Amino acid sequence: VSGLDGLGPALAKLRAAPPLVHNITNFVVMNNTANALLALGASPAMVHAPEEVEDFVAISGALVINPGTLSAPWVASMRLAAIKARTMDVPWILDPVGVGATPYRRAVNGELATLGPAVIRGNASEVLALAGAAGGGQGVDATDAVDDAVAGAKALAKERGTVVAISGATDVITDGRRVARLSDGHPMMAKVTGMGCTATAIIGAFLAAEPDPFWAATYGLAALGVAGATAAERARGPGSLQLEILDALHLLDPDTVAPTATLDG
Amino acid sequence: VSGLDGLGPALAKLRAAPPLVHNITNFVVMNNTANALLALGASPAMVHAPEEVEDFVAISGALVINPGTLSAPWVASMRLAAIKARTMDVPWILDPVGVGATPYRRAVNGELATLGPAVIRGNASEVLALAGAAGGGQGVDATDAVDDAVAGAKALAKERGTVVAISGATDVITDGRRVARLSDGHPMMAKVTGMGCTATAIIGAFLAAEPDPFWAATYGLAALGVAGATAAERARGPGSLQLEILDALHLLDPDTVAPTATLDG
Amino acid sequence: VSGLDGLGPALAKLRAAPPLVHNITNFVVMNNTANALLALGASPAMVHAPEEVEDFVAISGALVINPGTLSAPWVASMRLAAIKARTMDVPWILDPVGVGATPYRRAVNGELATLGPAVIRGNASEVLALAGAAGGGQGVDATDAVDDAVAGAKALAKERGTVVAISGATDVITDGRRVARLSDGHPMMAKVTGMGCTATAIIGAFLAAEPDPFWAATYGLAALGVAGATAAERARGPGSLQLEILDALHLLDPDTVAPTATLDG
Repeated sequence: VSGLDGLGPALAKLRAAPPLVHNITNFVVMNNTANALLALGASPAMVHAPEEVEDFVAISGALVINPGTLSAPWVASMRLAAIKARTMDVPWILDPVGVGATPYRRAVNGELATLGPAVIRGNASEVLALAGAAGGGQGVDATDAVDDAVAGAKALAKERGTVVAISGATDVITDGRRVARLSDGHPMMAKVTGMGCTATAIIGAFLAAEPDPFWAATYGLAALGVAGATAAERARGPGSLQLEILDALHLLDPDTVAPTATLDG
Repeated sequence: VSGLDGLGPALAKLRAAPPLVHNITNFVVMNNTANALLALGASPAMVHAPEEVEDFVAISGALVINPGTLSAPWVASMRLAAIKARTMDVPWILDPVGVGATPYRRAVNGELATLGPAVIRGNASEVLALAGAAGGGQGVDATDAVDDAVAGAKALAKERGTVVAISGATDVITDGRRVARLSDGHPMMAKVTGMGCTATAIIGAFLAAEPDPFWAATYGLAALGVAGATAAERARGPGSLQLEILDALHLLDPDTVAPTATLDG
Repeated sequence: VSGLDGLGPALAKLRAAPPLVHNITNFVVMNNTANALLALGASPAMVHAPEEVEDFVAISGALVINPGTLSAPWVASMRLAAIKARTMDVPWILDPVGVGATPYRRAVNGELATLGPAVIRGNASEVLALAGAAGGGQGVDATDAVDDAVAGAKALAKERGTVVAISGATDVITDGRRVARLSDGHPMMAKVTGMGCTATAIIGAFLAAEPDPFWAATYGLAALGVAGATAAERARGPGSLQLEILDALHLLDPDTVAPTATLDG
C-alpha cells in the first residue's frame, strides 16, 4: 500500500523487521537521532571511521548523511559511504544543515548532492541554497517560507533525480512531478534542536521499508508530524516536548495513524 | 536599561531579534547547549571546521568557546575563531572546563584567555586555576568555595581586561571593580552535566543583546538561576530537572523575571 | 561487605567519596553517561586528547573505554589510557560496542581486550563476537540470548583474566568461575539508546569503590536494573524512561536497595 494511506502499513512493516539505519550525523543530535529511530521501531547505528564506513553501509538498510558539524575527515567518510551506498543500492538521504551559511558548506553539500541521494531534506532556506536560488538563511534556521521554496525544490529534484523534502509549518515533498503536503506538527518543534535532523533520520528508516523514496519521505515527515502534534498537547515547553515526541513515536499506532496530507500531480 | 533591573528588557530585546550564537563547545553538552539557547530565545549553531569557523564568526552575534573535550584540531579552530571574533568585534566567552586538571588544559586555556574574551565563566576551582592561584580541583567539579575565588577573579579580570563570572551556590560576576552576586539556582543543578556550560552559552546569547559584558554575564547567570529555581520545584531528580530547566527558560517572562541580586563597587 | 548484599554499602561508600570516573566514550551517549554517573553519585569527566589522557588517568578512580564511534585518533588515545591505567593500577572497563559488525571493530576491540581491563561488558552478541564464537549480531543490538553467551563469557573471562558482564533480560556476570545473575530491569530499556553504555559507566564508578571487579560489575548492573525497573513504572515510553532512570539512580537508597540476584560457583 503506497499513497497517502500507506503510512500505517509502512510503519507496521518497519517494526516487523527493524532496519539497521547507518547514520553519519552531527554531534548535536546523535543521541536524539538514535532515540527517535529506536522509538519509531528501527535499529540505529552511528559509524564514521573510514576504516569501516563501507563495511557498515553494506549491512545497512539505509544511510543518513548529515554534515551539520562537518570537518574534512568526516566529509571524506561521508563521500566513501555515499558512493558505497550507491554501488550497493542502499538508499541514502542527505540533510544539508545550514548549507547557505558558508562557502565550505555550500561546496560540501553541493558535492554530496551529486552522489545519488534518494532524498534530500532541509528547511526552505537550505533547499533554496542548495538549489542555487537566492535566500541563504543564517545558520540552520529557516528564513524562507516553505511555499516559496517549492519551485526550487522541484527544480532540484529534477536536476538530481531525487526526492526533495522541505520541513516547515507545512511540509512539502516532491520528486519534481508529484507534490505531497503535510500539515501536522506544532510550532514549538522549532524550539527543539535537531528536529529537522530527526525528520531526516526517520525518513531514512522509511527508505528501508518503502521502495518509492517519494512515499518514504512523505511517511517519515508524516510520522514525525503526527507524533509532534500529539506530543505538543502534553508539553509545557521545548524540554518536555523533546521527551514527549520520543514517547509519541513509540506509541504511534499503525492501525489508526492518520496524517493531514494532500497530493498534487 | 542596564543595571540590576535590566534582565527583563535584555531578554525581551534578545527574543525580538534572536542572535545567532556560534558555539565551539564540547561533545557532552552540545545538545543541551543548543536546546537551552533555543529555549531562551536565541539561535544556536555548532561549527568547528577550520575551513569555515572564521566565516561563521563573521555572521554571528556572539561566540562561545568551551574546550571541555579539547583536542589539537579543535583548539586550532578555537584559536582561529577567537582571533576573528576580536578582529570583527564579535563578543566571545571562554569556559575553561577543568582547567586545573592537566598541564595541557592549563596551557590551552591560558592561551585562549589572552585572545580577548569579553567574559570568562567557570566554577571557583577553574577560575582560581586560571588565575594561577592554588586550588586546582579534580576534573570539572568545584572544590573551592565561590567566595574564596572572588579575589582571584578580580585579579584575573584586571589582568585580562575581561569580565569573570563564577558560578556556584552564589554566583559572582566581576570586571575587577564592580561585583554582582546572585543567589538563585538550586543545589541539584550540580547533578546535571554541563549546567556550567549552559550558563556560559546563555551569557553568550546576552553578549549579543547587551553591550556591557558585566551586565551580559550577570543577566545570563540570573536567567539560568531563576529558571533553575523554578524548575527545581517541579523536579524529582536530575533527569527531570534537566528537562524542566529548558521549559523554565522558555517560560521566563521578561515582564516579571526578578533575580535575587546585589551589587558592590 | 561484598557478596549479594553488598550493593547498598558500596553505593554509600561511592557517594561518601565520589570517584572521578574518566570516560573515553562515544558521541551518542556522552551526555547520558555523564548524567547517569552524576545521578548515581560519581564525578564524571570525558577526556580524550593524547596530550592529556595519561595525566587524567593518573588522577582518576576508574577508566571507561567505549569505542562505539571509534576512529583511529580516538583508538590511539584509548590505547594510551588503557596502558597507563594498567601501570597505575587504575581499574578500567571495556565496552566493545557492535564488535561483530566490521573487521575494524573486531581488530580494535580484540586489541583493547588484551590491555588488562578489569571488566568487559557487552550484550550477548558482542560478548560472543569478542570471544571468537559465532553469532556476530547486526550493529549494536543483541541477537543472541544471554544464556547462550554464558559459556563464551566464561571462556573469555578465563582467557583474559577479567570479569565479563552480559546485559540482557537477565544480566550475567562471571569471572570464569563465579556466575551472578540479575533479573531486574525492564524490556523498554532496550528502546533507549546507550543503555548498555550507561551500564558500563556505572560499573566503572563501582570499580572505584569495590576492589573485587566481579562484585563491582554485579553492583553496577544491579543498580541500573533496579533503577530501570522503578523508572519503567512511571514511564509512558522511551523518552520518559530515559529521564526517569536518571531520577531513579539519584533516588536509589543504599539502605533499602535490593536487587533480584542469584550466585553460582
